[in-house]
Amino acid sequence: MNDDSSCIFCKIASGEIPSQKICEDDKSFAFMDIGPLAEGHVLLIPKGHFVTVDEMSPDDAGAMLRHVPRLVRAVQAAAGCQGINVLQNNGRIAHQVVQHVHFHIIPRNAGDEFHFNWPAGSYPEGRIEEIAAKIREQL
Amino acid sequence: MNDDSSCIFCKIASGEIPSQKICEDDKSFAFMDIGPLAEGHVLLIPKGHFVTVDEMSPDDAGAMLRHVPRLVRAVQAAAGCQGINVLQNNGRIAHQVVQHVHFHIIPRNAGDEFHFNWPAGSYPEGRIEEIAAKIREQL
Repeated sequence: MNDDSSCIFCKIASGEIPSQKICEDDKSFAFMDIGPLAEGHVLLIPKGHFVTVDEMSPDDAGAMLRHVPRLVRAVQAAAGCQGINVLQNNGRIAHQVVQHVHFHIIPRNAGDEFHFNWPAGSYPEGRIEEIAAKIREQL
Repeated sequence: MNDDSSCIFCKIASGEIPSQKICEDDKSFAFMDIGPLAEGHVLLIPKGHFVTVDEMSPDDAGAMLRHVPRLVRAVQAAAGCQGINVLQNNGRIAHQVVQHVHFHIIPRNAGDEFHFNWPAGSYPEGRIEEIAAKIREQL
């Protein structure tokens, strides 16, 4: 397990920096976001230091993300919200601020302040097959 | 394993409806989104029919989500993008359209069309502890 002595989320996972913990196990830690997008906004992180999710092994990712269903269920029940977004940002362009993998569990309600658009596009003929083949080659 | 005979993602996972498949195993299926937010937009779904992620067992969620790192890595390499958002929407209010759990893997680049804001708030004194306790009670 890597760690980074200057990383705030490593310090939260180790208990060096206090947080409102929701749950933890040997691989993962969940706690309240202190700058919430809505009441009940929770962060799920790996205890190991990974900057982006692509750095994680399948086992580490599975061990952390197996907790997503029960966290979503608990946040929904406690916050009484109408929906939930699960969001993980890789890279500054994608809104990543803290350089340690974190999955946001974000309660949603009608009229709330968090918004995204959905500018769905389409592929020109033949292009989806090309890009799919390129992705498969990289697996 | 549940399934829903009218569900388009169940039909894609079974092969009844063709898709540009990226990979699959016994529990999960990844394929190209035909209405992409950016070139290389991939969807990862469970083969079982679950409407929202809270319906999944820890094992089913872990078995599916262990593939997130390699999919993110492959999409990043193939699309040559600057970042990636991993996003899963539960409920209409949270932008869920197809009623079968799906994790979006969305390539991001400077100047692209997909946007979200980040209206981070704060808790009044004592409130974060209250809501954290309520979430822990629901776990």
